[in-house]
Amino acid sequence: MPLAEVAYLGVPFDGGCSFRPGARFGPGAIRQASRNLRTQWHPAYETAPFDDHQAADAGDVSCSPFCIGDALTTIEVTADEVLTRAKAVVSLGGDHTIALPLLRSVNKIHGPVALLHIDAHLDTWDTYFGAPHTHGTPFRRAAEEKLYLQDCSVHVGIRGPLYSKLDLERDAALGFMVIHCDEFTTRGIADIAARIKGRIGDRPVYLSIDIDSLDPSAAPGTGTPEVAGMTSREMLLLLRALQGMQFVGADIVEVSPAYDHAEITSLAAATIAYEQTMLLLKSRMAMARKLKAPESK
Amino acid sequence: MPLAEVAYLGVPFDGGCSFRPGARFGPGAIRQASRNLRTQWHPAYETAPFDDHQAADAGDVSCSPFCIGDALTTIEVTADEVLTRAKAVVSLGGDHTIALPLLRSVNKIHGPVALLHIDAHLDTWDTYFGAPHTHGTPFRRAAEEKLYLQDCSVHVGIRGPLYSKLDLERDAALGFMVIHCDEFTTRGIADIAARIKGRIGDRPVYLSIDIDSLDPSAAPGTGTPEVAGMTSREMLLLLRALQGMQFVGADIVEVSPAYDHAEITSLAAATIAYEQTMLLLKSRMAMARKLKAPESK
Amino acid sequence: MPLAEVAYLGVPFDGGCSFRPGARFGPGAIRQASRNLRTQWHPAYETAPFDDHQAADAGDVSCSPFCIGDALTTIEVTADEVLTRAKAVVSLGGDHTIALPLLRSVNKIHGPVALLHIDAHLDTWDTYFGAPHTHGTPFRRAAEEKLYLQDCSVHVGIRGPLYSKLDLERDAALGFMVIHCDEFTTRGIADIAARIKGRIGDRPVYLSIDIDSLDPSAAPGTGTPEVAGMTSREMLLLLRALQGMQFVGADIVEVSPAYDHAEITSLAAATIAYEQTMLLLKSRMAMARKLKAPESK
Amino acid sequence: MPLAEVAYLGVPFDGGCSFRPGARFGPGAIRQASRNLRTQWHPAYETAPFDDHQAADAGDVSCSPFCIGDALTTIEVTADEVLTRAKAVVSLGGDHTIALPLLRSVNKIHGPVALLHIDAHLDTWDTYFGAPHTHGTPFRRAAEEKLYLQDCSVHVGIRGPLYSKLDLERDAALGFMVIHCDEFTTRGIADIAARIKGRIGDRPVYLSIDIDSLDPSAAPGTGTPEVAGMTSREMLLLLRALQGMQFVGADIVEVSPAYDHAEITSLAAATIAYEQTMLLLKSRMAMARKLKAPESK
Amino acid sequence: MPLAEVAYLGVPFDGGCSFRPGARFGPGAIRQASRNLRTQWHPAYETAPFDDHQAADAGDVSCSPFCIGDALTTIEVTADEVLTRAKAVVSLGGDHTIALPLLRSVNKIHGPVALLHIDAHLDTWDTYFGAPHTHGTPFRRAAEEKLYLQDCSVHVGIRGPLYSKLDLERDAALGFMVIHCDEFTTRGIADIAARIKGRIGDRPVYLSIDIDSLDPSAAPGTGTPEVAGMTSREMLLLLRALQGMQFVGADIVEVSPAYDHAEITSLAAATIAYEQTMLLLKSRMAMARKLKAPESK
Amino acid sequence: MPLAEVAYLGVPFDGGCSFRPGARFGPGAIRQASRNLRTQWHPAYETAPFDDHQAADAGDVSCSPFCIGDALTTIEVTADEVLTRAKAVVSLGGDHTIALPLLRSVNKIHGPVALLHIDAHLDTWDTYFGAPHTHGTPFRRAAEEKLYLQDCSVHVGIRGPLYSKLDLERDAALGFMVIHCDEFTTRGIADIAARIKGRIGDRPVYLSIDIDSLDPSAAPGTGTPEVAGMTSREMLLLLRALQGMQFVGADIVEVSPAYDHAEITSLAAATIAYEQTMLLLKSRMAMARKLKAPESK
Repeated sequence: MPLAEVAYLGVPFDGGCSFRPGARFGPGAIRQASRNLRTQWHPAYETAPFDDHQAADAGDVSCSPFCIGDALTTIEVTADEVLTRAKAVVSLGGDHTIALPLLRSVNKIHGPVALLHIDAHLDTWDTYFGAPHTHGTPFRRAAEEKLYLQDCSVHVGIRGPLYSKLDLERDAALGFMVIHCDEFTTRGIADIAARIKGRIGDRPVYLSIDIDSLDPSAAPGTGTPEVAGMTSREMLLLLRALQGMQFVGADIVEVSPAYDHAEITSLAAATIAYEQTMLLLKSRMAMARKLKAPESK
Repeated sequence: MPLAEVAYLGVPFDGGCSFRPGARFGPGAIRQASRNLRTQWHPAYETAPFDDHQAADAGDVSCSPFCIGDALTTIEVTADEVLTRAKAVVSLGGDHTIALPLLRSVNKIHGPVALLHIDAHLDTWDTYFGAPHTHGTPFRRAAEEKLYLQDCSVHVGIRGPLYSKLDLERDAALGFMVIHCDEFTTRGIADIAARIKGRIGDRPVYLSIDIDSLDPSAAPGTGTPEVAGMTSREMLLLLRALQGMQFVGADIVEVSPAYDHAEITSLAAATIAYEQTMLLLKSRMAMARKLKAPESK
Repeated sequence: MPLAEVAYLGVPFDGGCSFRPGARFGPGAIRQASRNLRTQWHPAYETAPFDDHQAADAGDVSCSPFCIGDALTTIEVTADEVLTRAKAVVSLGGDHTIALPLLRSVNKIHGPVALLHIDAHLDTWDTYFGAPHTHGTPFRRAAEEKLYLQDCSVHVGIRGPLYSKLDLERDAALGFMVIHCDEFTTRGIADIAARIKGRIGDRPVYLSIDIDSLDPSAAPGTGTPEVAGMTSREMLLLLRALQGMQFVGADIVEVSPAYDHAEITSLAAATIAYEQTMLLLKSRMAMARKLKAPESK
Repeated sequence: MPLAEVAYLGVPFDGGCSFRPGARFGPGAIRQASRNLRTQWHPAYETAPFDDHQAADAGDVSCSPFCIGDALTTIEVTADEVLTRAKAVVSLGGDHTIALPLLRSVNKIHGPVALLHIDAHLDTWDTYFGAPHTHGTPFRRAAEEKLYLQDCSVHVGIRGPLYSKLDLERDAALGFMVIHCDEFTTRGIADIAARIKGRIGDRPVYLSIDIDSLDPSAAPGTGTPEVAGMTSREMLLLLRALQGMQFVGADIVEVSPAYDHAEITSLAAATIAYEQTMLLLKSRMAMARKLKAPESK
Repeated sequence: MPLAEVAYLGVPFDGGCSFRPGARFGPGAIRQASRNLRTQWHPAYETAPFDDHQAADAGDVSCSPFCIGDALTTIEVTADEVLTRAKAVVSLGGDHTIALPLLRSVNKIHGPVALLHIDAHLDTWDTYFGAPHTHGTPFRRAAEEKLYLQDCSVHVGIRGPLYSKLDLERDAALGFMVIHCDEFTTRGIADIAARIKGRIGDRPVYLSIDIDSLDPSAAPGTGTPEVAGMTSREMLLLLRALQGMQFVGADIVEVSPAYDHAEITSLAAATIAYEQTMLLLKSRMAMARKLKAPESK
Repeated sequence: MPLAEVAYLGVPFDGGCSFRPGARFGPGAIRQASRNLRTQWHPAYETAPFDDHQAADAGDVSCSPFCIGDALTTIEVTADEVLTRAKAVVSLGGDHTIALPLLRSVNKIHGPVALLHIDAHLDTWDTYFGAPHTHGTPFRRAAEEKLYLQDCSVHVGIRGPLYSKLDLERDAALGFMVIHCDEFTTRGIADIAARIKGRIGDRPVYLSIDIDSLDPSAAPGTGTPEVAGMTSREMLLLLRALQGMQFVGADIVEVSPAYDHAEITSLAAATIAYEQTMLLLKSRMAMARKLKAPESK
């Protein structure tokens, strides 16, 4: 039985949200908005993705909205299962809490990966209300579980004030390089892409994108908006500049449709999921070529 | 130190919500909408509530959005504390899960009370995703804890299809009389009020109102709307017809502002909270008269 | 030069609004919504209004948003002018402050008129912030100026708590009968219409309708919404039951489009303006018949 | 291969809309809103619909938005096809133009049927802009094609002014009885239901419901809203009172999500589609009993 | 009789829309939003446009929403008529289908013109559902009819994936140069303006602007939004940089108000229409100077 | 009694608004949105503002909505009073009319100040409808009263057409330098900041920010939106670049929540108020160091 190259997995969970909930309806909204995409030919990647590659919608994880622990388990088990039938998963959130079980699942196939995290917020805080698993803490837990490579991971798009002077130091101690959102103005996309590629190299990468990395004008439909964010053009130019890296998994999270307008946030997320698909397919195609190449010598 | 007659307690918790979340922002929205109320003289109760009686805003419970069990404890403890300083509480939800700790707290003062529950839904289901404490289950848990009087409790406004043929039987076994929402058309408010009074008599009553008892046209801003509901005129006429009963506590729950429009749901909830205040004050005034009456003989 | 039977005068003034402003955009919104009306034949009045009668849009009053006194003068002068070219005016508000200059203008033609005032609120308060002219005070000022007949005027749709126990007494002293909004449930439309007709008889009537007489579900787009209001069916059935009375002027006020949704409030107002047109035309047709009748004797 | 008892067919066509378009997104929105329905047991019909009966989602008709003629053909052909695999269809509109091809399809199975049409508007006008097939004309075309029984068809919910004094006469000439929306106040639901049953008797009935039969407060999300409409409680009580009639097909049309708020229109439509399912199933169960009955004699 | 220099022609047609309809209400919304413009003095053009030049609102084309062919004819005829009374037209859409009859009309005066097309999409596809005339196909039809100069036409703002690898090749075969939207970041406005001017030179130009060339954050109210678009500042800087070119006609299309918020899309369109007016007036003033100049030699 | 370093003063006045009113609800909305700010540590200023400094919410000015003159007096008196208890005030508007009494109040402490005014509009017009005090005229009145230093004041963000060719000349005569909004693209933030600092130097500065300086995509919730505005990133980068200047007072005005979506405008305003706090605190810290410095010499 042929495997899908890429599967889409909805994760309608928002129990880890600290402010405006509703990301449980994100997967549905992203699928709806994807009706407005033309998906036959992507000129920026010179790829006809769904002509040459099998992609599948793996549906939604049926996880409890009432107990974070139960939900994390269900998400991990479901992602594991999908990875027996697909070579890579693009997960549609859901709040950022879900990145932890998704990373656990990716680790079972690929071992620790480089983490490329595009977000307004660090998401490496410790606990809220004593809870270890929330949408502000997945990457601290992931660090404790050694799920990502701590010398080659990157946050992009970080901005805004912090809970403590120590936030950045503690984050650095977990191995992250921070690319502040203002650098899109002060240094430009080419410079940012080069630093990301320089740090990660050809290691396998998990790409986790919080829609609140975009500016609230482009993505009002999210739980913890933060002004002075990325434009969607900056997002797409950055992603396209990262072709050539070895992506092995991806998520797009924190779409909260009740706060959206005219589907603009959902459309941005659907477009990002499509670009993530391109990056995963290009990575797999490159890997395939590499595997073949020695033989042809 | 003088006690307040009535305190308002916000309970910004929506972790027990099964469909559209956001009731965590209900207390704030109800307070905002209350700016549009004239509160000096209520002709339907012939009362100048805040001239003659002390009322206080007790603020919000600071409860975890991440763990239902923790939240229930915090809510109960906070309500207990408020009840040391106020003779009655009007709680502003939050989802209906909060009725359980609020009833526990009321029980510590008044013992088991009659429960007058105005809602589109029974809220006596057993579990969802294995979770015992959700917004669909508070009154089954309350029954198990014997928090209300099972021979004199009433649901009003129930409508819509059910999970099982047995739902109504099981609900009846918990001691509820059901007044279906259609009866506002088929039998009229006077008849409904008479049946409620006949069943409850002069027992102490806890009045729990889910804003989704109102029709979605009057209360779009809620988590599980159900068509064919009460008009706000039916609601107010019913409440006013219940003067003379012995109310000892009240809540108004399930206001989810992200789904509201022009504050109409919040305004309905604020108006209901004000009417609940009238009912509690009238009850206390009647009780006071009764206590004095024997002496004056 | 032939006169118009009815002219529509927009009064885009909201400087007298005490809570949610925006009624300055009411006239435009009502006109827009009127595109959805079929105006050729009205079966309830058995009239083809615009076949047999000249109606004209007199445009908007160009009044200052910055000074209530200036605005009232401009409105009165403009209305006077329109009444030299039209036999009756339907004014499109604007907040209820505008009823005062409109009544002044009507008085110059008809002398003191009976006032039929459909509203959630009495609008006979004295001052706010020391200001005599606001949307809560027009009918006290009108009483002081003896602009309406104090033994035959009526409020319909009043509801909600009050600023003072004395509000109703003071209002009664100005000569108003109050028909409470609950009476649409408790006594019915036929009874209400009969009482209005009984009180006003065949005196000339000015019909002032505040859109907040409708329930917030039917008219969210208004400044001071009040729950437990009229349905639009109750409104139309009442107006149609008043055929035969001698209407000489009318307004529909307090449409605030920024709070509307899907134009439902504007559409209700446009429909009411159209019904007011029918009542004015029927009144004029009856008057015309009466004038002719003696001759035929 | 077993047939489905009921199939749901989305008809995402709004090319016949004369005012606010967008009903092309109605089928998707109705399906989304149906997630909030509890469908296991319907106490008003004492039926567990999906336990005992096969129901299927037949997907959407893939019809051109650009040519009404082409679209009508595609809709008819698709409906015919679905009727080879399901005993009855509930169609989800789409604007009211689609009723014509759906009636054609029903006629091929059942011959001319009684038409029970619940709507604010007659929909028996002749042409708009010279176009014979629009959402205001399906039932005149259907009359010309003799698709319904002209001595036993009924409009319910009609209201508002008309294009011409002759509209009602011409409509009557097509064989319709009109039950005006005001009659829900003046005569009551039981009377209305009795007149419908009296006129239609046990003939096979097609039930076409335009969501604009509901009041704009309950159904803002539609193309040509009309004030003074039905409440959703009136709608459900009416439908439930019609049990016992022989329904053979149904549609719910004119849901235009871009004008909806908080999904209240879509939820009303989904609830109506569910009630239509109940009526169809009860009809089939009655028919089945009747077929068996003679044998048991 | 003096001619207007510029006339505004509303074209409320959206029958060619493939996704979210509603542009039929674009002309009205653009006019409404234009109330917020100050139009006395435009410093970027150093022009007091309406002091020195006659501009007129030519109203809306009364075109059928039911038949694309009929509508195209009506639009062309009406535009022809307007051009007998105005020297240039700014058309307010409506969907992009309308560009074809507008170009036909312009051709009758000016012969084939250079086409400057600012849009997210190419709009040179062949057919949808077999229909030749849709909002995705006007410029292929225009090419077939030789309505524009194929060696000097330009698309600006193009972005997003495509239906086929051949889309760009086929588009190039029709004579278009493509300036991708990303070039606003990578090359800058001055470079883009220079390339446009270089290609078009002093030929007469028709300027067709689809509001979806703007980013969805700036123009949510449109039918087929596409992320990574132009900012409104980029749009205005580009237009102002094109002064000196010979504009002879213009349109601004695809404003769909039901998806707009706070009129931001309509305001952007109104502003663009105003800038187009400036470009047309400057062109005519330059032409007038040129005509006079030889004489003064 | 210790003084607060900074106090927040709400000024819920919109009686000077010429177009879309509603800024009276700005202060409440900005406070609500501030719940989403993390305020413990601001890395761009390397300050823990509320650890080391006392800040206080001074509540709202209770000013008349009915009389501009009365309101201006109340605002000035209240601001004076707050300045006896706080060293600096950040005012939350309200429309821009309020800047005049706030400047008067600041003058009493600091004498004439440099004015740094960030806005889409000049706000130095003379009168509207004969009214001297409106949201378009505060800085002409302020000039007449010599409230600011006319050789060192600056407008930033100005754009759009004007009422007259003379607007800019008259504005220059009042002593303003204009930095056009397009210069954020054409010259960049560093250049803009340098020019502002060059002009103002170390004079005491009042910083008045109109939220409509932001683009409508980032700030739809305002009264007179103007396209081609600043991004929120440009705003924050500019403000942070102004560290070192001597700020003595600030306001953020023209937030009109009825036109906002998902609180994005309010959040932008809350973020700006927080940045203004940083600038005021840094100024005070610098001043304190300077005062101490001579002693330590």
